[in-house]
Amino acid sequence: MSSSYGQQLKLSLFGQSHGEAIGVTLDGFPAGMVIDQEHLLSEMARRAPGQSALTTARKEPDAPEFLSGVLDGRTTGQPICAIIRNTNQRSRDYGESVDLLRPGHADYTGHVRYFGFEDWRGGGSFSGRLTAPIVLAGALCSQWLERQGVKLACHVQRLGDVQDASFMQADPAADYSYMKSMHLPVLTQGLDTRMEEAAMAARNTCDSIGGVLECMITGLPAGLGAPFFDSVESQISHLLFSVPAVKGVEFGEGFGFAALRGSQANDAFRMVDGRIVTTTNHSGGINGGITNGMPVIFRCVIRPTPSIAQKQETVSIRTGENAELEIKGRHDPCILPRAVPVIEAMAAIAVMDLWKERAACLK
Amino acid sequence: MSSSYGQQLKLSLFGQSHGEAIGVTLDGFPAGMVIDQEHLLSEMARRAPGQSALTTARKEPDAPEFLSGVLDGRTTGQPICAIIRNTNQRSRDYGESVDLLRPGHADYTGHVRYFGFEDWRGGGSFSGRLTAPIVLAGALCSQWLERQGVKLACHVQRLGDVQDASFMQADPAADYSYMKSMHLPVLTQGLDTRMEEAAMAARNTCDSIGGVLECMITGLPAGLGAPFFDSVESQISHLLFSVPAVKGVEFGEGFGFAALRGSQANDAFRMVDGRIVTTTNHSGGINGGITNGMPVIFRCVIRPTPSIAQKQETVSIRTGENAELEIKGRHDPCILPRAVPVIEAMAAIAVMDLWKERAACLK
Amino acid sequence: MSSSYGQQLKLSLFGQSHGEAIGVTLDGFPAGMVIDQEHLLSEMARRAPGQSALTTARKEPDAPEFLSGVLDGRTTGQPICAIIRNTNQRSRDYGESVDLLRPGHADYTGHVRYFGFEDWRGGGSFSGRLTAPIVLAGALCSQWLERQGVKLACHVQRLGDVQDASFMQADPAADYSYMKSMHLPVLTQGLDTRMEEAAMAARNTCDSIGGVLECMITGLPAGLGAPFFDSVESQISHLLFSVPAVKGVEFGEGFGFAALRGSQANDAFRMVDGRIVTTTNHSGGINGGITNGMPVIFRCVIRPTPSIAQKQETVSIRTGENAELEIKGRHDPCILPRAVPVIEAMAAIAVMDLWKERAACLK
Amino acid sequence: MSSSYGQQLKLSLFGQSHGEAIGVTLDGFPAGMVIDQEHLLSEMARRAPGQSALTTARKEPDAPEFLSGVLDGRTTGQPICAIIRNTNQRSRDYGESVDLLRPGHADYTGHVRYFGFEDWRGGGSFSGRLTAPIVLAGALCSQWLERQGVKLACHVQRLGDVQDASFMQADPAADYSYMKSMHLPVLTQGLDTRMEEAAMAARNTCDSIGGVLECMITGLPAGLGAPFFDSVESQISHLLFSVPAVKGVEFGEGFGFAALRGSQANDAFRMVDGRIVTTTNHSGGINGGITNGMPVIFRCVIRPTPSIAQKQETVSIRTGENAELEIKGRHDPCILPRAVPVIEAMAAIAVMDLWKERAACLK
Repeated sequence: MSSSYGQQLKLSLFGQSHGEAIGVTLDGFPAGMVIDQEHLLSEMARRAPGQSALTTARKEPDAPEFLSGVLDGRTTGQPICAIIRNTNQRSRDYGESVDLLRPGHADYTGHVRYFGFEDWRGGGSFSGRLTAPIVLAGALCSQWLERQGVKLACHVQRLGDVQDASFMQADPAADYSYMKSMHLPVLTQGLDTRMEEAAMAARNTCDSIGGVLECMITGLPAGLGAPFFDSVESQISHLLFSVPAVKGVEFGEGFGFAALRGSQANDAFRMVDGRIVTTTNHSGGINGGITNGMPVIFRCVIRPTPSIAQKQETVSIRTGENAELEIKGRHDPCILPRAVPVIEAMAAIAVMDLWKERAACLK
Repeated sequence: MSSSYGQQLKLSLFGQSHGEAIGVTLDGFPAGMVIDQEHLLSEMARRAPGQSALTTARKEPDAPEFLSGVLDGRTTGQPICAIIRNTNQRSRDYGESVDLLRPGHADYTGHVRYFGFEDWRGGGSFSGRLTAPIVLAGALCSQWLERQGVKLACHVQRLGDVQDASFMQADPAADYSYMKSMHLPVLTQGLDTRMEEAAMAARNTCDSIGGVLECMITGLPAGLGAPFFDSVESQISHLLFSVPAVKGVEFGEGFGFAALRGSQANDAFRMVDGRIVTTTNHSGGINGGITNGMPVIFRCVIRPTPSIAQKQETVSIRTGENAELEIKGRHDPCILPRAVPVIEAMAAIAVMDLWKERAACLK
Repeated sequence: MSSSYGQQLKLSLFGQSHGEAIGVTLDGFPAGMVIDQEHLLSEMARRAPGQSALTTARKEPDAPEFLSGVLDGRTTGQPICAIIRNTNQRSRDYGESVDLLRPGHADYTGHVRYFGFEDWRGGGSFSGRLTAPIVLAGALCSQWLERQGVKLACHVQRLGDVQDASFMQADPAADYSYMKSMHLPVLTQGLDTRMEEAAMAARNTCDSIGGVLECMITGLPAGLGAPFFDSVESQISHLLFSVPAVKGVEFGEGFGFAALRGSQANDAFRMVDGRIVTTTNHSGGINGGITNGMPVIFRCVIRPTPSIAQKQETVSIRTGENAELEIKGRHDPCILPRAVPVIEAMAAIAVMDLWKERAACLK
Repeated sequence: MSSSYGQQLKLSLFGQSHGEAIGVTLDGFPAGMVIDQEHLLSEMARRAPGQSALTTARKEPDAPEFLSGVLDGRTTGQPICAIIRNTNQRSRDYGESVDLLRPGHADYTGHVRYFGFEDWRGGGSFSGRLTAPIVLAGALCSQWLERQGVKLACHVQRLGDVQDASFMQADPAADYSYMKSMHLPVLTQGLDTRMEEAAMAARNTCDSIGGVLECMITGLPAGLGAPFFDSVESQISHLLFSVPAVKGVEFGEGFGFAALRGSQANDAFRMVDGRIVTTTNHSGGINGGITNGMPVIFRCVIRPTPSIAQKQETVSIRTGENAELEIKGRHDPCILPRAVPVIEAMAAIAVMDLWKERAACLK
């Protein structure tokens, strides 16, 4: 099933980039939460295009319309459906070379999957635009989680060759809310400028650039998740890998574990202020698939945007012949700034689903 | 739900390391397949302990008993349940320090999760032993996939500092079945000896060592998987991250994408012998969450075994006081050889579930 | 999860009677089907209010708007989302006595369920209006099924004391499409007039009246469904009992089996024209939860509409005191005519889900 | 998926009548419950054959073996797997006429479903024997529910022509635990003797007889279930219709609603002792799919056992020719006494799943 996820909190995503509207249904969201509209819109704005030279110049207002599940600004407990109208489709940008499969995109696989009947316009249901309703759903979840004392922060840990510090070495008790207002949120002051330069360098050669995002979730109790198929890592990675640009996910030391000995990798337990904590957090807050009360830390890699202005070799799906493609229109040289709220949203959805599953055990 | 997975093919896992038995139910497996017992037992043997100095000396015969779903050696289409008796539990190895939380293990998180009622003996349901029924289920799936022309191969791509070549540069048409009979399967001849030495070095300092496994799946048609929550990456990573030792998963270039430009990362399409192929395979056979007909390639990191013989700092869950722990008994200094068939099994289960979902579309 | 259903074909329902819109997402619907708009709208019209004196006079245009999954009148294989705007909410009809729990309705249980935060206006998400998107989804499914040779027919088998003949004795090969254009579809000519009189009699005493609907599905192959939890009866009844007015469901002889001996109840097998058939169809086309190729026949009871103009005893949820309620506004004395397309829709959804599950087995 | 059910509490059933063992995995069952072995075994005994002349003389000890999820007689929170060995298979009773499809059984539909590869021996996975693990799972659920103050009672409300009183008119506060020790539990004293005579009369003509079971569940809070697809009626009926012998299910007045006016069918609300109750309970404790705090009452019809000693017309699946069948071996003339604990078990499983879903909302 392509577009549904979740056990306690069921998400159902719909829409194509150039159809009438895109949207999401969120079933199982708790009743009685006053929605923070300002936060919601600011999260949507972080994902929206046109914020800087790095991102595409298209303007998408992306104001969500709640069709159900909200009364007088408060969730009712009934399924929440919210849609975002597609108002700014410039199909002619795409129209000319529509039979040429764009390398790195899902044109070919979507064509096979849907037997040629897919709504291919603007990437159809593979479009990055589909992440807008995800940000919307995630914003509701992170508002709910925040009221339980859970905080999420996400920064660009790497962009091309520019490498930021890591949450693995940072103070989990510090305030990272400043990241929300940065175009390229970083831990190391000033590094965003260098990242911006790297992105502009790619743009100037009609190219694009990838990087790594890192997310930290604090305030989680021990005991979320379950062994094997409901591990915290399974749930979070399932959602992260739903984002087409994500090609790798790691928790705690991640691939760095390959270079560690067990004696270096284990996190020792200690009693601190009457609570069991670990003195290090190599495991990224998760043991055996279950949260241990330490911050959950993960990273994911974002591949460079496949839409580049350089000439590319490809095939015409219409003629079955080799061809050359020049993608016109406006495209992001670096998608990372806009991916930040998407990754946070996915994490918030996963964690809230796990939280509700845990609540059923606590009765 | 901790122990169930899959949509077309439903897997339900049960058992604790020191209970009566461990096992698996596989619901939705096709009728009429003659089970290749020899292949099944050899896959189980690859995962079983005691094969070399690298792995624990415990002998687990691990002969599976089919309780249902098989008649005269052939699957019946009804749910397959197979169990493996726990015959060799030396609980005394664990008994002494049972209140001391083992660092890197799930003792603490399991205790919280199950309110102190969990069957903690030998790791309970977090035990690596639970991967035995997974290998069993995966072997059935890979037998079925092989009859559809699908092949899986998995090697140790890195062990500590020893780095093997990658399937990314290898010939997908070559025969990698030799890997099945290697204790440490590698692409580069002779490298297994160096890996073995690295593992022995860790063992000699009462330590353990981690690494990276790489898997390639060939023979898949284009069109498996679906955008967003049923992406091939989502399904495979969900299952891989169910294995407690896995802390990172990447597809194609994976985290390497961070260092690439879009022009380097895109795979150009070409017509070859009347088929659409890509000239490179940076995407690891997946575009927009859907297979493109090229080999699916992924890597996952295996953390160093947390059970080490060195003295470790921890806490007593009974007294709530700091303590020191010395783990006795027999433990693997390097779990990678035994993890290989587990990772292959998880991949086979994920792919077969996707295959059946696709079949429903083709009618 | 309140509003999601299905395994191969996932339905997600949303909306409240007096919110912005109601709608449905259908995930997993096959690509490439040209939608028969005329059929779709005529099914919606059968459910719509205001068709006769029997049904409420409110006008709901109920024209669905497809937000996604359809391109140039053809399904794309991507999730189909369709909404129906709520344009004619006369909340003042309900407003006055809004704290008085309407007997037979879900006001009280909804209040408990949603902690008082529910959108109660007009029945909220319990409203019969929510069956409009179900009819929409069902119409798409029955269009698809019809192209596979499957036909559904549904008639009012009983209304109050007026009893129609049964499909159990009818010729399955006859053409029942005439039922689609009858306000009260019946098997026995002229009986609809007597039913209409019975309904008017109830209306004239400010009362309402219930009845039984019977549905027959022909053209199904043997082999749909599965033992135990995926039995055809389980799937169909699950969906039928989702309709608030349905309080009983039976297949074949149904409760009549209690009066039969085994020798009378068994359906003998015979070879007819090279096919295995049964000479009778007491089982209603289902053995052991699986279709046997004979017509599937079921009945469901529709309780009398709870909204009646008579004075009723109740409680004020605001004051916690006993009270008397007089429901004003326009209400159906007999909901059966409008329930017919809803029951057909639910059956079509269930059967198509089973069909797709079967297709995955046939590869 | 044939053999898995549940959202919060996942049930996975396996086994064929004449395979090695049958069993069930219960995933999500709470940790820390001391299992009442005596109650468990007595429920299993009620379902077991050979209790009287009414039921088959085969002896099945049916002692369950817990493979996982239980430690020192207490649930651990981990998946519970329990199996029952098949020890008394007299395949020769079936062997002779194995190619002749038994009318009313699933021989034919199972053959189609599983392409002829099914384990057909003794009914395979369609066998009534598969209800043994269901009773086991249900007994655990009803033990858990009882500790929450929930009680279930079930009686034979009709057997052939003999009709018992109904829970609809009974005092919900009375003690119905005596029913557990009756072979044919009834509300009306002495009626079980008349039912027994009716069953013996059927038996004496080599025939079988059906009937109706009625179940009442008291002690449920208001607020369980959800509108539409998670209605209490949907969940309970889904499970009841999984039992091959069940062909009809109704709640409250059920099919009797067809003869009632709205003014007769509505249950008036009143305040009694500070609680909202209904003065009647026509709705069977459920409004809009959600419990209202009144007793949940349902009935289901059990068709007469299809295995009868009379000669029957059928077809040979081997030769494709008409044939005559005489079923030998030992069979129940009346399955109702043994069906009682099965129906109670299904109800307990459904209610506990709903309870846990509700708990997640209450946090």
